[in-house]
Amino acid sequence: MPATPTQARRIVLAARPQGEPRETDFRIETFTPGDPAPGQVLLESLYLSLDPYMRGRMSEAKSYAPSLAVGQTIVGEVVARVLASAAPAFAPGDLVQAHAGWTTHALMDAKGLVKIDPAIAPVETRLGVLGMPGFTAYAGLREIGRPRAGETVVVAAASGPVGSLVGQLAKRDGARVVGIAGGADKCAYVKKELGFDAAVDHRRDGMAQALAEACPDGIDVYFENVGGAVWEAVFPLLNTFARIPVCGLIADYNGTTSRPGDLTVPALMRGVLSKRLTLRGFINYDLDSYREDFLREVGAGLRDGTIRHAEDISEGLDSAPGAFMGMLKGRNFGKVLVRLAQ
Amino acid sequence: MPATPTQARRIVLAARPQGEPRETDFRIETFTPGDPAPGQVLLESLYLSLDPYMRGRMSEAKSYAPSLAVGQTIVGEVVARVLASAAPAFAPGDLVQAHAGWTTHALMDAKGLVKIDPAIAPVETRLGVLGMPGFTAYAGLREIGRPRAGETVVVAAASGPVGSLVGQLAKRDGARVVGIAGGADKCAYVKKELGFDAAVDHRRDGMAQALAEACPDGIDVYFENVGGAVWEAVFPLLNTFARIPVCGLIADYNGTTSRPGDLTVPALMRGVLSKRLTLRGFINYDLDSYREDFLREVGAGLRDGTIRHAEDISEGLDSAPGAFMGMLKGRNFGKVLVRLAQ
Repeated sequence: MPATPTQARRIVLAARPQGEPRETDFRIETFTPGDPAPGQVLLESLYLSLDPYMRGRMSEAKSYAPSLAVGQTIVGEVVARVLASAAPAFAPGDLVQAHAGWTTHALMDAKGLVKIDPAIAPVETRLGVLGMPGFTAYAGLREIGRPRAGETVVVAAASGPVGSLVGQLAKRDGARVVGIAGGADKCAYVKKELGFDAAVDHRRDGMAQALAEACPDGIDVYFENVGGAVWEAVFPLLNTFARIPVCGLIADYNGTTSRPGDLTVPALMRGVLSKRLTLRGFINYDLDSYREDFLREVGAGLRDGTIRHAEDISEGLDSAPGAFMGMLKGRNFGKVLVRLAQ
Repeated sequence: MPATPTQARRIVLAARPQGEPRETDFRIETFTPGDPAPGQVLLESLYLSLDPYMRGRMSEAKSYAPSLAVGQTIVGEVVARVLASAAPAFAPGDLVQAHAGWTTHALMDAKGLVKIDPAIAPVETRLGVLGMPGFTAYAGLREIGRPRAGETVVVAAASGPVGSLVGQLAKRDGARVVGIAGGADKCAYVKKELGFDAAVDHRRDGMAQALAEACPDGIDVYFENVGGAVWEAVFPLLNTFARIPVCGLIADYNGTTSRPGDLTVPALMRGVLSKRLTLRGFINYDLDSYREDFLREVGAGLRDGTIRHAEDISEGLDSAPGAFMGMLKGRNFGKVLVRLAQ
């Protein structure tokens, strides 16, 4: 059994970001985790997941989850190894998923930990394609998007962990799938590796025009995870009875694109009425009834190679702030992970 | 059998309204309807229904139905008596519903006519509480709003044919119901006659504040039929998982409130996500599967007096433009009808 570490490290919120986060908004602290009390386990993090929703927690604005306080460890999910256990259900060496935050080690209540079987898929996929982002794609598409054969499905951040699965699942449903991504490399990946029918580069001029050309029959499902200019380009292309699952608005998270664009609220509402659109926001855990189907279907697709995914892994806790800031600017390629231990 | 009239009258679109319609946008024409060809009937209109959607048809803007051309008879539904029939299913004296438009008489294909049994309810209710407006309320509430006991339901134009039924049906579901209406008389009617829990007068200053006070537990269902300032007042009060059936935007129809208010599209989308709202537009005929339940439930409520409704009837075809313009300004009290014959 590994010795209890005397020097663990974590990253706390040093200051609330104004717009884009900066290095000085983060601070590394060292701490001694101590021994688990009854019902607790001591975890060593192997992988930390970085996700856009974390930017929202750093703001004071009210949302679906409480804000982080300045000085708190930044929230996040990890895949971890149990180092020491004072809980009957866990033994040293067990692999688990935990909401431990940006930290190398954590004492956690055993309640709320989920054991991982590494035989099903590489453990880090539990933070990406087989974890919260993948489940967001699956549940939002099944519950709200419901693409039918021949319909057109559009998703942005198409090389990311949500968008890439949305597109691949919609292809399985027989839909025509158009991905929006930033840069030629991501667009090539989306078409060639993921099998999307078309890819539109939002970094090039004329994105709205390119999107219109890629969707000659309009858009029936727009899986909204970015907001901003992409939403404004999608809106006029929506067909009657189009469905819009809304799971994220990464373009707005830094508050830098929150000025109104050309689309006004009255125009949006007129579109909702005249085209009988459905806009529905959701958070993955609202739709837990889909979880078993998700694990079975996507797990099988990972094992037989019919579902592809990309990971963008940086090394060591110190790399987390930079990787996070880069992700908010779309500099990642695939699911963003930080490797904290082997 | 009444003689075939030699002088019938109709109202055509003389000019496309710019903003609020004016008298000069309408023109009365006389015509001779002639005799029915095989498969046709000649109708004498008894009641003409005036509805907000007609304003949309007068505009060139694309919507769910084609625009009227200048010179065309203005669209609308009537309750009519068959004067002469060359169709086997109809005989002189039959009462029918027909999309005949703003006209005293019309030759119509028998296909598409619906016979009315006057024993079920007064025939003019087929244009209001037991017709398209009532069905809009019923189907939108059952399919999208789905209020549960103890939830708060808000509807505007609460003394009108849609809003009054939305509120009464939601009360049957055990919801707390708040109506928004223009003026003290309508507010008193909504509370005392229709049994709403609270009424808010949108003509008084501080409507948003009054609405917030009338909804101490927030809003779970907002039945959207007006748009504009009411929607902006409702939006911050919406609860998590609130449902918003969108069936009309009367405040925007004249194009006079289409300037953006304080609510921006990014803020709206953030609300959709963080509160997991459902916004869904619908047109009554999208939801035809509810029609039998509607006729049974609302018909029974009319007969036993547990469902109340108000009608605002003006006399003669000449009164239609004025009644229509008044309705767009909220000057009517209840369902707006024009009586064309006894």
